[in-house]
Amino acid sequence: MDLPSKYLQKAVEEMSSLPGVGKRTALRLVLNLLQQDKKDVIEFAQSFVDLVEHTKLCSTCHNISDQEICGICSNSGRDKATICVVSDIRDIMAIENTMQYKGTYHVLGGVISPMDGVGPNDLNIETLLTRLMSGVVKEVILALSATTEGDTTNFYLFKKMKDIDVKVTIISRGIGVGSELEYADEVTLGRSIINRSPFDLNLSK
Amino acid sequence: MDLPSKYLQKAVEEMSSLPGVGKRTALRLVLNLLQQDKKDVIEFAQSFVDLVEHTKLCSTCHNISDQEICGICSNSGRDKATICVVSDIRDIMAIENTMQYKGTYHVLGGVISPMDGVGPNDLNIETLLTRLMSGVVKEVILALSATTEGDTTNFYLFKKMKDIDVKVTIISRGIGVGSELEYADEVTLGRSIINRSPFDLNLSK
Repeated sequence: MDLPSKYLQKAVEEMSSLPGVGKRTALRLVLNLLQQDKKDVIEFAQSFVDLVEHTKLCSTCHNISDQEICGICSNSGRDKATICVVSDIRDIMAIENTMQYKGTYHVLGGVISPMDGVGPNDLNIETLLTRLMSGVVKEVILALSATTEGDTTNFYLFKKMKDIDVKVTIISRGIGVGSELEYADEVTLGRSIINRSPFDLNLSK
Repeated sequence: MDLPSKYLQKAVEEMSSLPGVGKRTALRLVLNLLQQDKKDVIEFAQSFVDLVEHTKLCSTCHNISDQEICGICSNSGRDKATICVVSDIRDIMAIENTMQYKGTYHVLGGVISPMDGVGPNDLNIETLLTRLMSGVVKEVILALSATTEGDTTNFYLFKKMKDIDVKVTIISRGIGVGSELEYADEVTLGRSIINRSPFDLNLSK
């Protein structure tokens, strides 16, 4: 694509470096920026500079934070005896949105995936084990994706933690709420039968 | 969505201000930026600042340009006697990509659309008429979208130009190249019959 300005060309290239944004979409987005007030575009650009200059990763759980310790780790109302292990900070947001969890988190920064060249040493596993050594933690909840990579990582973590006096649990797998039974795949349906739980009137409302 | 950092929040808000980018996509894009090198993100942001600070609109045709006069208007190889009227700079790129046009352009900056509050005075029509007064221009090609708004604008321009000694043409409407006849709508098919042209062996290859 031949653009009439080298600045436009550069902006389109930068925009299309974002995942899932092609050249055509990038051009549409950049032309939209050009139609906005100059000060709005400068504010737009500044927000990304501020982002990389001022955010850090929480030194305890590796969540994104403005401070050394994130809002969840520094919140005295959260249960420090429970750590929920997730792969990504987006998973924290997803779990927080459920309003069902009051413990803390630990962000691995991915899952073990030899295909993508990600080994255990690339993940925040050592810091997790250090947190467990303190003796405060009673339960570790494994909340990774239900994929082969997630399962591999769960298994690796479970083995690493087997000599530590901590209860290791895993989030349940089964039929999604609102799903039709007949459309569930066999593995999920089989798992939901094996992991059946006592009927609870409160959850069945 | 409750984000763990106000800078992240701000960046996601800015990203989701782009057309067609929702909060979830914005978060995915911003988290991707966070994983890149700091200097790459600063370059990313700078490209948009440069864009609004250094690009201008060509004083002749209103195309985006780094200079006062755009590359097409200042190119002595282009036919200055022909002006192709388009609504948007993306249309220039689309026509340039066909390699079938060697004249100049005039960007209206939209089409007349009372529903969107766009009237003739919001478009670059006066500057078009001024260009025609110079006497250099022999033909004006109307290349607006084949919509009601495009037709209204064509009609308005045609009336404005009727006392000026210039040939006014319009790009042909008909069956798209590679399209099946049976799937064409009646209006398009009807128009393609009315506007039939002598068979040309060169175009039918």
